[in-house]
Amino acid sequence: MLNRNFESASRDYVQEIEKTLEMLLPESSRDFADGEIPGNLCRAMRYSLLAGGKRIRPMLLLAVSDMLCGSHDNALVPAAALEMIHTYSLIHDDLPGMDNDDLRRGKPTNHVVFGEGQAILAGDGLLNYAYECMLKEAMHSPAALQRSVKAISCIASAAGVTGMIAGQCIDLLSEHQVPSEEILRYIHTHKTADLLTAPLLAAAALCGATDEEESALRRYGLCVGIAFQIDDDLLDVTGDAAILGKKTGMDAEREKMTWPSLVGVEAARNESKRLWQEAEDALSIFGESAWFLKKMAENLSGRQK
Amino acid sequence: MLNRNFESASRDYVQEIEKTLEMLLPESSRDFADGEIPGNLCRAMRYSLLAGGKRIRPMLLLAVSDMLCGSHDNALVPAAALEMIHTYSLIHDDLPGMDNDDLRRGKPTNHVVFGEGQAILAGDGLLNYAYECMLKEAMHSPAALQRSVKAISCIASAAGVTGMIAGQCIDLLSEHQVPSEEILRYIHTHKTADLLTAPLLAAAALCGATDEEESALRRYGLCVGIAFQIDDDLLDVTGDAAILGKKTGMDAEREKMTWPSLVGVEAARNESKRLWQEAEDALSIFGESAWFLKKMAENLSGRQK
Repeated sequence: MLNRNFESASRDYVQEIEKTLEMLLPESSRDFADGEIPGNLCRAMRYSLLAGGKRIRPMLLLAVSDMLCGSHDNALVPAAALEMIHTYSLIHDDLPGMDNDDLRRGKPTNHVVFGEGQAILAGDGLLNYAYECMLKEAMHSPAALQRSVKAISCIASAAGVTGMIAGQCIDLLSEHQVPSEEILRYIHTHKTADLLTAPLLAAAALCGATDEEESALRRYGLCVGIAFQIDDDLLDVTGDAAILGKKTGMDAEREKMTWPSLVGVEAARNESKRLWQEAEDALSIFGESAWFLKKMAENLSGRQK
Repeated sequence: MLNRNFESASRDYVQEIEKTLEMLLPESSRDFADGEIPGNLCRAMRYSLLAGGKRIRPMLLLAVSDMLCGSHDNALVPAAALEMIHTYSLIHDDLPGMDNDDLRRGKPTNHVVFGEGQAILAGDGLLNYAYECMLKEAMHSPAALQRSVKAISCIASAAGVTGMIAGQCIDLLSEHQVPSEEILRYIHTHKTADLLTAPLLAAAALCGATDEEESALRRYGLCVGIAFQIDDDLLDVTGDAAILGKKTGMDAEREKMTWPSLVGVEAARNESKRLWQEAEDALSIFGESAWFLKKMAENLSGRQK
């Protein structure tokens, strides 16, 4: 990728990601037919998957592939799959039995539109379909199979019961626990940072990166992820609901453990700032080639939604 | 496997499956710690996974591996993973937003014990962990990687949005639709038969079976699956709740579309009988070596729970 303008490069990435998602999950017009996704299920999956997410995770997968192996052709399906996993986690998080949210990205949440049962299945469906797509794609290139499977395995670990789901679990349980920095760091690391680190490590696996490169990317991902979550919590206190596309003040209403509630808004801002700097520092071994990741961090650190 | 006594052979299989499940998902004593499954999540996953299921699907995977390649060492993890997938589908099916069941295998359902949020996560966790375990295991044997990935891919398709989840979706929607044989056959094929066929096709992939063997197994799986589901519906009408470990008469109460409700109890019994016979016929190409599959069908066709 020769284009080093961040805005246009990210626009190009997003376009490719949307195209891949559309290709993997096209509209289904029939109620049901063997070998097709049932119409209602497909609509529910597409409703949340194509709801205008920022596509941060898939973009990271493409950008690191470009950085490490100069192309991202075999990264497109894993990138799209990662977005399916991210989307399923949001659908399930919003359910009445979990966070009970009725607004997401400015639109009614999945269960509000499709009903709880179909929303549960849409989430299950996106998670399973992510693996289905990645596995099928991997089988198309037998020569690269080992690297592909390692990449899928990275994603599975990050999304799983010692990764994102572990974070969701403790997040949910923490509403009834004494707040502590230890718990909060655990939640942010696993609920948010793990799935932001997954695309970096998946790309590293696809490109056969060195251990040094891998641990630099891991450091970057962890810092970005925790800073991102602290900012999220800050936006819930100080953000604009109209810009955010979701209600603010929800964490306080639910007495949720957050960085601002634990250490105060000012200290949370400082911690976020420190982490964004550490993320940038982690990229030093890549030199100029990490320009996109650097810009991405700059961009995210100033976000208002 | 030289032991051709069905009872003792299936007891041995079940023992190996339980051991593998216990190895993959041991108890976790700590509330949370990096690299570990959180204690509460682990308990919720184990509660349903180790609730004394019949282990039909994993048994089929081991038995077909023994039949086609004379061993089942590399089939144990996929077999256990398949049981995780089956279990996750039951946990989610039982949720208030789906079938709203409070009893399963004679015990309170997952969300009754752990709460809805944790039950959703336990289900998500089991689904994702199934892939995590299979992928890790596959990477241990690079020489067999292609076959392993094909097997995992079979399972993913069967469990997914054109397989089991498609069946669950139409099952849920059908409560408000005009009953028809077409819909009902679709539901039984995908909700039940697909995940019973998955272990057969996964074992075929692991052993590099011929197309002829594969389609015979597919036929057997489809017939067993639909007959199994018809029997399930019949048991809901005529079975004993104490033996079943769950309430009877629930389908009628929910006005659920079932074979007995569509064609009557007698015709449903005949269709089931015909399918059990067709399942047995499908095995003819394997001769004596299919003795376990044959016995399994005989055994299931007479079940009271």
